Amino acid sequence: MNQVGIVMGSDSDFKVMEDAIEILEEFGISFEVKVSSAHRTLERTLNWVKEFEGQGGKVIIAGAGMAAHLPGVVAGATTLPVIGVPIRSGALEGVDALYAIVQMPPGVPVATVGINGAKNAGLLAVQMLSITDRSLKESLQQYRVNMAQGVEAKDQAIQKKLRD
Amino acid sequence: MNQVGIVMGSDSDFKVMEDAIEILEEFGISFEVKVSSAHRTLERTLNWVKEFEGQGGKVIIAGAGMAAHLPGVVAGATTLPVIGVPIRSGALEGVDALYAIVQMPPGVPVATVGINGAKNAGLLAVQMLSITDRSLKESLQQYRVNMAQGVEAKDQAIQKKLRD
Amino acid sequence: MNQVGIVMGSDSDFKVMEDAIEILEEFGISFEVKVSSAHRTLERTLNWVKEFEGQGGKVIIAGAGMAAHLPGVVAGATTLPVIGVPIRSGALEGVDALYAIVQMPPGVPVATVGINGAKNAGLLAVQMLSITDRSLKESLQQYRVNMAQGVEAKDQAIQKKLRD
Amino acid sequence: MNQVGIVMGSDSDFKVMEDAIEILEEFGISFEVKVSSAHRTLERTLNWVKEFEGQGGKVIIAGAGMAAHLPGVVAGATTLPVIGVPIRSGALEGVDALYAIVQMPPGVPVATVGINGAKNAGLLAVQMLSITDRSLKESLQQYRVNMAQGVEAKDQAIQKKLRD
Amino acid sequence: MNQVGIVMGSDSDFKVMEDAIEILEEFGISFEVKVSSAHRTLERTLNWVKEFEGQGGKVIIAGAGMAAHLPGVVAGATTLPVIGVPIRSGALEGVDALYAIVQMPPGVPVATVGINGAKNAGLLAVQMLSITDRSLKESLQQYRVNMAQGVEAKDQAIQKKLRD
Amino acid sequence: MNQVGIVMGSDSDFKVMEDAIEILEEFGISFEVKVSSAHRTLERTLNWVKEFEGQGGKVIIAGAGMAAHLPGVVAGATTLPVIGVPIRSGALEGVDALYAIVQMPPGVPVATVGINGAKNAGLLAVQMLSITDRSLKESLQQYRVNMAQGVEAKDQAIQKKLRD
Amino acid sequence: MNQVGIVMGSDSDFKVMEDAIEILEEFGISFEVKVSSAHRTLERTLNWVKEFEGQGGKVIIAGAGMAAHLPGVVAGATTLPVIGVPIRSGALEGVDALYAIVQMPPGVPVATVGINGAKNAGLLAVQMLSITDRSLKESLQQYRVNMAQGVEAKDQAIQKKLRD
Amino acid sequence: MNQVGIVMGSDSDFKVMEDAIEILEEFGISFEVKVSSAHRTLERTLNWVKEFEGQGGKVIIAGAGMAAHLPGVVAGATTLPVIGVPIRSGALEGVDALYAIVQMPPGVPVATVGINGAKNAGLLAVQMLSITDRSLKESLQQYRVNMAQGVEAKDQAIQKKLRD
Repeated sequence: MNQVGIVMGSDSDFKVMEDAIEILEEFGISFEVKVSSAHRTLERTLNWVKEFEGQGGKVIIAGAGMAAHLPGVVAGATTLPVIGVPIRSGALEGVDALYAIVQMPPGVPVATVGINGAKNAGLLAVQMLSITDRSLKESLQQYRVNMAQGVEAKDQAIQKKLRD
Repeated sequence: MNQVGIVMGSDSDFKVMEDAIEILEEFGISFEVKVSSAHRTLERTLNWVKEFEGQGGKVIIAGAGMAAHLPGVVAGATTLPVIGVPIRSGALEGVDALYAIVQMPPGVPVATVGINGAKNAGLLAVQMLSITDRSLKESLQQYRVNMAQGVEAKDQAIQKKLRD
Repeated sequence: MNQVGIVMGSDSDFKVMEDAIEILEEFGISFEVKVSSAHRTLERTLNWVKEFEGQGGKVIIAGAGMAAHLPGVVAGATTLPVIGVPIRSGALEGVDALYAIVQMPPGVPVATVGINGAKNAGLLAVQMLSITDRSLKESLQQYRVNMAQGVEAKDQAIQKKLRD
Repeated sequence: MNQVGIVMGSDSDFKVMEDAIEILEEFGISFEVKVSSAHRTLERTLNWVKEFEGQGGKVIIAGAGMAAHLPGVVAGATTLPVIGVPIRSGALEGVDALYAIVQMPPGVPVATVGINGAKNAGLLAVQMLSITDRSLKESLQQYRVNMAQGVEAKDQAIQKKLRD
Repeated sequence: MNQVGIVMGSDSDFKVMEDAIEILEEFGISFEVKVSSAHRTLERTLNWVKEFEGQGGKVIIAGAGMAAHLPGVVAGATTLPVIGVPIRSGALEGVDALYAIVQMPPGVPVATVGINGAKNAGLLAVQMLSITDRSLKESLQQYRVNMAQGVEAKDQAIQKKLRD
Repeated sequence: MNQVGIVMGSDSDFKVMEDAIEILEEFGISFEVKVSSAHRTLERTLNWVKEFEGQGGKVIIAGAGMAAHLPGVVAGATTLPVIGVPIRSGALEGVDALYAIVQMPPGVPVATVGINGAKNAGLLAVQMLSITDRSLKESLQQYRVNMAQGVEAKDQAIQKKLRD
Repeated sequence: MNQVGIVMGSDSDFKVMEDAIEILEEFGISFEVKVSSAHRTLERTLNWVKEFEGQGGKVIIAGAGMAAHLPGVVAGATTLPVIGVPIRSGALEGVDALYAIVQMPPGVPVATVGINGAKNAGLLAVQMLSITDRSLKESLQQYRVNMAQGVEAKDQAIQKKLRD
Repeated sequence: MNQVGIVMGSDSDFKVMEDAIEILEEFGISFEVKVSSAHRTLERTLNWVKEFEGQGGKVIIAGAGMAAHLPGVVAGATTLPVIGVPIRSGALEGVDALYAIVQMPPGVPVATVGINGAKNAGLLAVQMLSITDRSLKESLQQYRVNMAQGVEAKDQAIQKKLRD
């Protein structure tokens, strides 16, 4: 049983979605990845959603570009929380994908992150899972501490640079 | 057997989509109307598409607002030409719907008309059907003649107004 | 202990955020509401977040308009999942709020819903809580069934209207 | 007699419009290509449209960038269905072309595809022709099957990559 | 012989284009008005342009909304300077018309004014005619003096209001 | 005495504005070029405008990027027709310049061309001058004929390419 | 001698700019108001700026809509800090004014506030003046305390409403 | 005691914010630089603001990209004037940052400059400080004279180029 399912419409989205995978690996969350389309392989996509949910999956991350229907279609097929990642591509640079994911009609939400924000999608999944997982919550708190230390280290590097 | 199927995600779209109905009635094209959603009743929507196509339906018009997935999802489920009508609603006034309909990925086109352009959707359906229907083509040509006369009548009304 | 905390920067946001409250009441989720600002009462906001988290709160919904910093600032102060609701107001009609909420930098996600999408924010909170709550999951599934029946009823009303 | 006419305002559009040509060749659809402008050679454009229609042409694909008037002007000169391809160019990256093609006034529709969406324009033409051509419909269904298999192959490649 | 020709695609544009008429009347410039469309009555439009130019017309003002092709099409049919007025209408509020008028490809310019800027279109026509008409130039200079006095009068009204 | 004055706020605009110069040279129109700013050297700019107008100058072309005030400020200082060229630069890619030039308030028009449309600005100046210059009008008509032949030549090149 | 000068291009801007006046009155800052245009009365505007600066004026607030040149032109004529207020008007709802004010080229800044943000412009002027005025700084701190209390009062009203 | 504090959320913003540093150095203004985030190190950011203000700091410049909360959060924590620099990054190219900085709600202004406008931010800080510093005002006036001479030199270079 995997806790998080990551689905994307095309393998060209993988280089963006990898950021989510890295986060899940960092937090030790089990996951599976699926390339499946809302338009080209809709039935297969719906089957995967049902199967993932049936096997005890907990959160789905869906990435798509342009007229990005995948996150919304997945969200309509499950009551698991679905996180949508608008992918930057084409002439509209991901604004089309952002609108197509975030502006869902009432009743079927998609938890949308920023354009190409797969890293934040991974973290959001971890945060959802941490609601009832104290150890995960502690890992998240440690992650925040590390981030803060990273900012401080960058600040010191700038201070040093300015002194020199 | 109906030649054109009109599908919309919500009955609130009806007041816009009615313009397509009027055109089809004017040209004597048989049609059916379906309220069904890409998110709330996806399976039902897909079943209707299959059934409509199976019974010899020829063109589908799909209208939706906001993150408008219905036209694209329908287009993925059939090889019939699908005409998409972005509906003006919400804070983005239909720009979200336009992008979500027109920016389809390669392989699954949606023939998109302007925001709230249901009348043009109806005419486009008639034009598609007229490819192999001489009598329909003549009706379209007459429709154009009438439109041109309408413009001329408006011109004369303005000329009169300016003279007075 | 309340499961969901709803925070907004101004009482003028209440008429939008009420949609989230109604959903939480419908699903029997305990919640609390806080009016507190990211700019005018930042410390008070941070204190409320800490307190809410300390008392076992599980999900936060934050709504804000214009340069909508509240959801992001709250998200930086907790590891609980934070759902952001961009509120339509001012000359940019909520596009400013959408961008200011969804485009969070890597490390601190906000789960963003559509402009004025408070109802979906409430549902998203319920979905997050349902990950480990079977009874809540069943309520969500029933909610989806009801939504689908609502669509079917609307379809029948349209069919009737067209027949008459 | 060619079934599809492809017209573009400038030979610089050819590298985009070639995607439509490839599709038509793949489906064995006869076609002709015309470089002609709505502004520089309007009369010549209109003559070509009349001639193409008079010789039994069935669908027109028109591509244009910036203030993209060609598809609309062509649509006004024929009752054949006209598919418009907004071409990405200039500072507005094709948003100007999209609006100038899709926002046609009531009475003269253009079936608009996405920015640089010439491949989908080709497919849409095939779909229109398939309304009364069973063999073409079967080719389209096979094309969809192949696309689906392509997605599955990409999925397997990703699965393999993740296992390694 | 009229010096300025005002053309618009629909009589619904008249209430905006009237501002240009008022300016031309104020400066004693002869003009004619034509309602004719780039799509519905293209040939008639082109005939009017040729006739207007042939009779010694000097400047054309063309107003249109949405996918506003009329100014560009007129500009392609004459070497007279053509002033384009984007008209506010539909969901895009005239941004579509602005882009469709101003973003003309190299070779066929349209002198574009602001959305609904028919008054400025009228003034621009007068300015063009004043290049070789000293008396008109003096009228324009007087118009500017009057405008400046209008600003000063408004200033005094505000000063008075603030004192009271 | 020069007929056309070309003014730009910075020498970095020269590579765009050169397109206007080439057109004027091609049509044998006398011109002068001025680098002067609406913000850094306003008085000098205004002096140049007065001087240019006083010496019998007839048309001004003004190019500027970002918050492009130069065309409007020049237009306020003369009754000569002023053509504005929005220059593509910075993060907004010239949309800021387009809006800052075209959206002039009533009373002071700027004849705006497309983003980076300096060639069209040059042609528009020639068209304005041709109102009372028959020989220039004939040159413009010849220019149009040449353009049309250019399109035809491109068409033939494409036909040849497709045959090969 | 007045500390703050408020200038606007038209008396129609007064109803927005009044918010700045109210703030200045609340903080006891002396000010003067001027209606003067960057295009219709440029010289008068420049004279007022010189005079205001010469008499010891310290901060200028300039409001304008559409192609809003007034703040930038004023900023080019003085080294006093200039605060720009983009005013919502016309089809672009103030986005044009925002871009025309904030996107100033390097060398001549305008301190821009939000669309219709005259209240914030007034506060920003007070903040600038408070840099070397301790008593004003204390007033600002008290203003912040009052704002915070206002938020708390609103929170209590909501709590009460929810209890009832 | 430093007069100006420059704060940015990430060291990747440094290459843009350096333009502000150069200006401050040119005018001999003391300053300090801080890398600190509104989300990752909020408390540290607030502490720095308090400390900077407590030690007599006078103006703060804050730069941030994407959902740029730093300037607004800093502005809420001090009554010193805060200058916001929207930084160009990500798919929205800084439009998100611009909106997130400039559209502050009433009560807490941020003096916003253009996207990547750090040079203007530096100059604006100098202008604020010059309100009560005659020598700084003279330096600014000299800076303006130099800028004007720079424009004139560029003009002469263009004149020479055109003569050659």
